[in-house]
Amino acid sequence: MSTLAHVYRARQRIAGRICRTPLVASPALARMVGAPVYLKLETVHPTGSFKLRGATNALVALAEQGVKRVVTASTGNHGRALAYAARALGMEATVCLSALVPQNKVDAIAALGARVVIVGNGQDDAQAEALRLARERGGACVPPFDDPLVIAGQATIGLEILEALPDVATIVVPLSGGGLFSGVALAAKGIQPQVRMIGATMERGAAMHASLAAGKPVSVDEVKTLADSLGGGIGLDNRHTFMLTRALIDRVLLLDEAAIARGIVHAYREERLVVEGAAAVGMAAALERMLSAERGALVIIVSGCNIDIELHRHLIGAA
Amino acid sequence: MSTLAHVYRARQRIAGRICRTPLVASPALARMVGAPVYLKLETVHPTGSFKLRGATNALVALAEQGVKRVVTASTGNHGRALAYAARALGMEATVCLSALVPQNKVDAIAALGARVVIVGNGQDDAQAEALRLARERGGACVPPFDDPLVIAGQATIGLEILEALPDVATIVVPLSGGGLFSGVALAAKGIQPQVRMIGATMERGAAMHASLAAGKPVSVDEVKTLADSLGGGIGLDNRHTFMLTRALIDRVLLLDEAAIARGIVHAYREERLVVEGAAAVGMAAALERMLSAERGALVIIVSGCNIDIELHRHLIGAA
Repeated sequence: MSTLAHVYRARQRIAGRICRTPLVASPALARMVGAPVYLKLETVHPTGSFKLRGATNALVALAEQGVKRVVTASTGNHGRALAYAARALGMEATVCLSALVPQNKVDAIAALGARVVIVGNGQDDAQAEALRLARERGGACVPPFDDPLVIAGQATIGLEILEALPDVATIVVPLSGGGLFSGVALAAKGIQPQVRMIGATMERGAAMHASLAAGKPVSVDEVKTLADSLGGGIGLDNRHTFMLTRALIDRVLLLDEAAIARGIVHAYREERLVVEGAAAVGMAAALERMLSAERGALVIIVSGCNIDIELHRHLIGAA
Repeated sequence: MSTLAHVYRARQRIAGRICRTPLVASPALARMVGAPVYLKLETVHPTGSFKLRGATNALVALAEQGVKRVVTASTGNHGRALAYAARALGMEATVCLSALVPQNKVDAIAALGARVVIVGNGQDDAQAEALRLARERGGACVPPFDDPLVIAGQATIGLEILEALPDVATIVVPLSGGGLFSGVALAAKGIQPQVRMIGATMERGAAMHASLAAGKPVSVDEVKTLADSLGGGIGLDNRHTFMLTRALIDRVLLLDEAAIARGIVHAYREERLVVEGAAAVGMAAALERMLSAERGALVIIVSGCNIDIELHRHLIGAA
């Protein structure tokens, strides 16, 4: 059972390793929405995404228990974060990735000294391989989202938002396996129960959305999307993030590929930010007029910048 | 006489108004230089540049004295910062700009509710007009750099760097009128006298460089450059930044336009940052192999992101 106490403990563990990220007003989006809009820039971590928070919290806790080897499966950003945190702590890391993971993310993980295993055509295959390797060779498995330590690490974003902007009305979070969403929601509603929590994700292949609709974890076909970090299942044996997300989410917003692309272009032109598709869903929702100004200030979490740069150039050039 | 005490007082004044900016490792530049390299991201301020620190410090101090109207001259970023800070404090701002200031910067200042006056073909003309307006209509003149409160505000960057990285060996600072440079140098050498302070600027039209060489403030012809924020004279009657810079600078590095362009492209491709030319000079120096690894970790100040976005697209598209 994750509580606010776990989140504060996570903050103590990651202190000095993870920077407090900026919360920057976006006048351009505020004009669209009709209320103040702030962007929480999780792009500035050395691995380019928020995932470093959860991975660092989990690995510091494991290192304190004497663990020396860690294994994971990832759509890219969690693996990169785990590889970075493992190197910083002198641990050995193995990262299992499916063939859907973009090459720039694979290269970045290998460059950090982790062992990279490419297996299968989806996150579920990578996850099965990670479990197999952990059993066979020993080492702790650090799941990309369905883990209390990972959730508590991501939740530190929620603390920072509530401290910087105590009267925040709505927080918009990219929704994938639910690690980021349930962490931020846990912290935000733990401090201020009236905060409205919105999950934004892609229209096709959104496993948490399908699972919420079905009332239980279900599988979806994984499809290619600009929001590649949001792909992958939530695990049919999901233990934490499904229940937490179901309990804490107020609304799910679905964005199609064109809207996500417009979010990426907006971030570049108006916010001077290079963002990946998964990080653009909240801005895309604002541009699509899906967000309401009624309750007051909105925070949009901009989760990462690890887009293939040729794809980015193509998107902003075509605009 | 500016001291470390003024810097700490500035930090107290801007607390809650200015965020502590991220200091992010750049593995790509570390490989080029052969030592750890960190980027201090002054791009994340709501006005897109470090100038908000100095303007905020000056205006909070003036507001405490009951001042209601402020006037300035600017190459763009200081004017935008002043307009922002004035609006936040309920003050009336007038910003004088020369015809060399890019349109995107002019528009941003006007959007913040400041009165914009376009005058002459250089920063010196704009400065003369600001003084004239302040005399004629009343109001405090807040110079863009040659002012103890402005210097102390920019200096808070130095405090943040030394706190985050106590063993920093070298800090590379974009060099223009010397407000940023002398502030950061004052703080950094005030805390750790061995820190090496490098000023980086453009090859042509660098007034502080020419003045340092001449041993006194001199005029230079202002020319068009990608590093437009570094243009303009230092004032023949310079009172603070010339002496401070001369006393505290260890080396000046000059970058040509092609090198600055490569810095902008590097920032985009490798660091996932949109930066303006003035902010790219430090990265350009690393790419040009002008920086030495001998003493240890380097910090490069990335001063702002207010580039014309069509120019940016052109630069990264042409690469």
